[in-house]
Amino acid sequence: MRLLLLFLLMIGITAQAWSQQRKRAREYGVKIGVLPTGSLNAITDVAGVQVGHVTLREGKYIRTGVTAILPHAGNVFQDKVPAAVYVGNGFGKLAGTTQVQELGNIETPIILTNTLNVGTALNAVVGYTLQQPGNENVQSVNAVVGETNDGYLNDIRGRHVTEPHVLQAIQQAKRGAVEEGNVGAGTGTVTFGFKGGIGTSSRHLPETMGGYTVGVLVQTNFGGVLQIDGAPVGEELKQYFGSQHIKDSADGSCMIIVATDAPVDARNLERMAKRAMMGLAKTGGIASNGSGDYVIAFSSHPEIRIPYATKEKTQTVTLLRNDEMSPLFMAVIEATEEAIINSLFKAETTEGKEQHVVEALPLDKVIQILKQYRVIRK
Amino acid sequence: MRLLLLFLLMIGITAQAWSQQRKRAREYGVKIGVLPTGSLNAITDVAGVQVGHVTLREGKYIRTGVTAILPHAGNVFQDKVPAAVYVGNGFGKLAGTTQVQELGNIETPIILTNTLNVGTALNAVVGYTLQQPGNENVQSVNAVVGETNDGYLNDIRGRHVTEPHVLQAIQQAKRGAVEEGNVGAGTGTVTFGFKGGIGTSSRHLPETMGGYTVGVLVQTNFGGVLQIDGAPVGEELKQYFGSQHIKDSADGSCMIIVATDAPVDARNLERMAKRAMMGLAKTGGIASNGSGDYVIAFSSHPEIRIPYATKEKTQTVTLLRNDEMSPLFMAVIEATEEAIINSLFKAETTEGKEQHVVEALPLDKVIQILKQYRVIRK
Amino acid sequence: MRLLLLFLLMIGITAQAWSQQRKRAREYGVKIGVLPTGSLNAITDVAGVQVGHVTLREGKYIRTGVTAILPHAGNVFQDKVPAAVYVGNGFGKLAGTTQVQELGNIETPIILTNTLNVGTALNAVVGYTLQQPGNENVQSVNAVVGETNDGYLNDIRGRHVTEPHVLQAIQQAKRGAVEEGNVGAGTGTVTFGFKGGIGTSSRHLPETMGGYTVGVLVQTNFGGVLQIDGAPVGEELKQYFGSQHIKDSADGSCMIIVATDAPVDARNLERMAKRAMMGLAKTGGIASNGSGDYVIAFSSHPEIRIPYATKEKTQTVTLLRNDEMSPLFMAVIEATEEAIINSLFKAETTEGKEQHVVEALPLDKVIQILKQYRVIRK
Amino acid sequence: MRLLLLFLLMIGITAQAWSQQRKRAREYGVKIGVLPTGSLNAITDVAGVQVGHVTLREGKYIRTGVTAILPHAGNVFQDKVPAAVYVGNGFGKLAGTTQVQELGNIETPIILTNTLNVGTALNAVVGYTLQQPGNENVQSVNAVVGETNDGYLNDIRGRHVTEPHVLQAIQQAKRGAVEEGNVGAGTGTVTFGFKGGIGTSSRHLPETMGGYTVGVLVQTNFGGVLQIDGAPVGEELKQYFGSQHIKDSADGSCMIIVATDAPVDARNLERMAKRAMMGLAKTGGIASNGSGDYVIAFSSHPEIRIPYATKEKTQTVTLLRNDEMSPLFMAVIEATEEAIINSLFKAETTEGKEQHVVEALPLDKVIQILKQYRVIRK
Repeated sequence: MRLLLLFLLMIGITAQAWSQQRKRAREYGVKIGVLPTGSLNAITDVAGVQVGHVTLREGKYIRTGVTAILPHAGNVFQDKVPAAVYVGNGFGKLAGTTQVQELGNIETPIILTNTLNVGTALNAVVGYTLQQPGNENVQSVNAVVGETNDGYLNDIRGRHVTEPHVLQAIQQAKRGAVEEGNVGAGTGTVTFGFKGGIGTSSRHLPETMGGYTVGVLVQTNFGGVLQIDGAPVGEELKQYFGSQHIKDSADGSCMIIVATDAPVDARNLERMAKRAMMGLAKTGGIASNGSGDYVIAFSSHPEIRIPYATKEKTQTVTLLRNDEMSPLFMAVIEATEEAIINSLFKAETTEGKEQHVVEALPLDKVIQILKQYRVIRK
Repeated sequence: MRLLLLFLLMIGITAQAWSQQRKRAREYGVKIGVLPTGSLNAITDVAGVQVGHVTLREGKYIRTGVTAILPHAGNVFQDKVPAAVYVGNGFGKLAGTTQVQELGNIETPIILTNTLNVGTALNAVVGYTLQQPGNENVQSVNAVVGETNDGYLNDIRGRHVTEPHVLQAIQQAKRGAVEEGNVGAGTGTVTFGFKGGIGTSSRHLPETMGGYTVGVLVQTNFGGVLQIDGAPVGEELKQYFGSQHIKDSADGSCMIIVATDAPVDARNLERMAKRAMMGLAKTGGIASNGSGDYVIAFSSHPEIRIPYATKEKTQTVTLLRNDEMSPLFMAVIEATEEAIINSLFKAETTEGKEQHVVEALPLDKVIQILKQYRVIRK
Repeated sequence: MRLLLLFLLMIGITAQAWSQQRKRAREYGVKIGVLPTGSLNAITDVAGVQVGHVTLREGKYIRTGVTAILPHAGNVFQDKVPAAVYVGNGFGKLAGTTQVQELGNIETPIILTNTLNVGTALNAVVGYTLQQPGNENVQSVNAVVGETNDGYLNDIRGRHVTEPHVLQAIQQAKRGAVEEGNVGAGTGTVTFGFKGGIGTSSRHLPETMGGYTVGVLVQTNFGGVLQIDGAPVGEELKQYFGSQHIKDSADGSCMIIVATDAPVDARNLERMAKRAMMGLAKTGGIASNGSGDYVIAFSSHPEIRIPYATKEKTQTVTLLRNDEMSPLFMAVIEATEEAIINSLFKAETTEGKEQHVVEALPLDKVIQILKQYRVIRK
Repeated sequence: MRLLLLFLLMIGITAQAWSQQRKRAREYGVKIGVLPTGSLNAITDVAGVQVGHVTLREGKYIRTGVTAILPHAGNVFQDKVPAAVYVGNGFGKLAGTTQVQELGNIETPIILTNTLNVGTALNAVVGYTLQQPGNENVQSVNAVVGETNDGYLNDIRGRHVTEPHVLQAIQQAKRGAVEEGNVGAGTGTVTFGFKGGIGTSSRHLPETMGGYTVGVLVQTNFGGVLQIDGAPVGEELKQYFGSQHIKDSADGSCMIIVATDAPVDARNLERMAKRAMMGLAKTGGIASNGSGDYVIAFSSHPEIRIPYATKEKTQTVTLLRNDEMSPLFMAVIEATEEAIINSLFKAETTEGKEQHVVEALPLDKVIQILKQYRVIRK
């Protein structure tokens, strides 16, 4: 008994140590794209955006969680943000899409969780919004809830996420650095056959390109042929879709949240959302048949928010012209690519349901490969 | 005790009598369109389709419910039906759309309820599907749940629909005549300023046009300028959007379910779904800004169902050619128009939350108007 | 020679007399909808909009033409207008759609012609735009050209429209009343089995609804079961799709141009465009399989135009809020319905190719029917 | 005179020699992706597909042309092919999209040319189709014409492509190897700041993945940050969008044609089309604001063609199930990426309008870079 305890303690220590060892891609010298990152290299570099995680990791069977993204610190229902949704591949249960597309805005926190708990998350966000001070007369709420399927590691049929978990994720949302890897909605996900999870990244455009910031957060759970900044890591590790060595279905999903402080309307946000799938493509994702690949994009720019209650019939807004969008497109592509790679770098080997084990991306080998392919300069 | 029983019996009789007083439009001589109806003039004329209602009418505040439409009597997850969704106006919370659009099929019963209980209905349908015999290993379920907002009559913020209500609606689903008016998801809805609710209708194409059946079921909760088979009833009753007499916001929503036994694939089902909004237009609806007008169309044709588990890589299907679609389009338009009108004819005056009263369509006056306008031939 | 001249003069007089005999629907007392019209009841009620027709009616075989709609009197390429396209049914060759949808604007006059002359019209609009003063360096032009198929009356395979015809239509475009019926792109079209053509109508919202104007112009060439302000004219005349008496394929097309002076962006213009199909539905159109039913909507509001050449990276615009859109939606529905009916009222019996004759809507009978159905009050 | 002839002859020889020097990427050892190519590594590996080029290279100003892709060798109008269009970024003039999307098929050869000659190409294809034996009664033709803007090298405002050029491209279309680089519609295009043009590639799925072939042909004219099989060639050459050294607008366009012999319907062809943009992303393209990035996908499978004239009301087809699509998605991504790279490898330095010179991709330097990054194994 005592030995066991000691043993577990050792494992614990090792795991923690390892966790400290696993750094973000850029810390190893992986520099994706040509644009500079924001100061945190996270979606929270976009003014006002907050992120909260609740991680459910109980016993041998529960490996799931909730991640909440708040477009701004205020009452989002009263001050909606311009937004758009793009469906990369719609094998998924994202709720709330059609109203975002019709009205061009988002009015709640965005919640990510597992596939079979979307209803629970919807209920929680609706309850949260109804209870917010100022929303006493609200009778209609369009909650935006995305998901990926963590059923390989997690007892997904048990539907272990509860409404309090969702509320907690919202309440814990904060600015600053964002935890990545096996946290929140990424606790039980698998990507390219390795442990996936939450990842984030950002880009800050130079002043000549507008000086705006784009931040991306991903929940990775998909497959294909992993490339890291162009290097064929999946092939080198002999783990990829189509390989004869490994049975990798490539299915799964990727939820992608794109935030910006640029003053862009819903139409141009949809165009930005489309580019996130181009970033996913660069990691080797193929948007397989069974993948639910969705992009939700919003602008947190304070002066283009859409008030719920106003006597005004018109709204005056200063918006970026179409001609200025290309740098933002490039920023979305780069930040999405890096966010996905970060989710792999930070996620740790996980054992879950039915003794399924998903190995973390083997950083030692990977870094060696990246050096061979000059992604990391020696 | 005995008195109470007698009293209840009397109420029962009265209610039944009242319900007998309000008939469907066609029974008064309103004959919408040029195509013949199916034998029941209901969505259940389409082979295999079943409908179940659970009506919540408790105290002074609860006026809501659930309506379930089952595409066929079997395990819908194992034998999916070709399907499509069309968004007439997306101010609504319909869940499950993107997967239907991507994969071209529906894999669960379709649930209608109120706006703030979509999460509950999602959870219920997921639970129902996970528990169905044969689905023991299923880990991903795309539930389709629609809604309209019954918050004028119903304490919608109380979110009184529970998962057992939803399951009950599914279990009670049956073939045969469909209850209309103040039932199920139509218990608390308002249409053109009158009491709306559930309505249904069907068309049976002559053999020269293919001999197929189209059935429509609606949950009506929207506004505009009511027309009945062309007659300007809203104007005559001085109750319409834009009138100076009545404050009618025209908002609300209309959920429209279109079923057919014609062998049509998802692409042509989407085209059929689009035509349902044309039927809505003919009742005077305007798809106002705040309306969630959605159409879900599916084919129940048994030989084009999509098996979940099969070793086959291909599927052989016999599909209707594009060139044969026009009669089906006309059938959708006519059946949608008549289903909406039926919802008004059958719905009864309702008092609900905060003593709000919504009057039923005044049939006496309306029939007089319809005679004046020759919709009903004297 | 002299006799010929006299003869031609007589024809001219007769034609003019005949044309005076056929009036617009409202002149007979048909009052569609509840909103007031603009002063001309035409698309040209929208400030700045101009319309030009070139009618080709030569020999026994040529019955076709061109209609040009100019969003404003200036250089549209240099001052683009916010715009959107909605595809009601896409069996058609409308060119220019994807750029309008992507960028949210229109940069040329809109041209309507016959199906097989779209290429010619494209070339003409491109040439016109390249030659406009100020466009000397322009190398990319997105011309918007719509069409319907006039091949029953017109020798469409002869492709008789030439680039000069298109340029002439643009140059002749003017404000003021719009010619309807057998003119321009409507010269050879057929609607509900009767002679169709060009029609127009407008609505002017009361100040409480914003005071904006909506104008619609249609090129009608489609089928179904004709209804005029709700009265079943097609059925009464025993001429409709599905009738055993008449073989009416219901195919054909309807091009619908929606203009407004309301300050609405591309997203809300797309929503307006969608409503035009609801107006078409009210005339009995079914958007049959073979129909090319397209709606092009734009705002002529001078302060939200999109400059081609500017050093500004942003644009400040005052836009109508979503919440204010419903009256505009209703205006689109009403004006589209009336424009289509006007095209039928004004079009005259036409003989064309292969001695095909298409009768005009028989106004005497129709007016009698409309009186019976109280559409026209005696 | 004689000297001039000699001189021209020398140029000819040199050009030819040079052209022999520039090989396709794979010949240098660049092996993109994990799937094997078809035997020609070209779109013509797909049974039935034919390609024809007409190159216009006259004087100092004309650098343009036409490329025709024939889905099969028969009368495409009479035997239409299932097809879909996906709009990556819609700043472009692609004609014919909406009918393809509505009806799910293509009925003419696909033509690629320059932006301002789309009308001419439309006219030519319409004329071609009207004249085909068997089409004597055809009155409606949906021509599909794509374009990119070659106005930097070509006198695009002169609109030098004529209808005979287009017809010639169709007539010269053939099976076998496809010319790449500065030919046909790629004569004057620019990609990543280098000379672009026509490129092609294919993938042949192993039998375990279905044994199908996917072929891609591209007309490249876009920008971004060039990557070749992951290697940062644009950065190494200091030529990329956003670089301080080079003013590269990233604008332009990419037309992508995807063909397959797999029996897939329009819905799944649209999904395949979407993946082509993921292949473009892997080359470093960003789908900039001014880019017209379109994908046209069709199946040449002979047993799922759609007959124009038939008495049958239904069609029996054997189609690939959704579950089998992922390998085809991967094949599209890989073949698109390689087709784009081939267009750069094969295109030669070109001088055109106003002495503008666009350099070919400097193969010597590039191959060195590719070796450094292990794309080419030494």
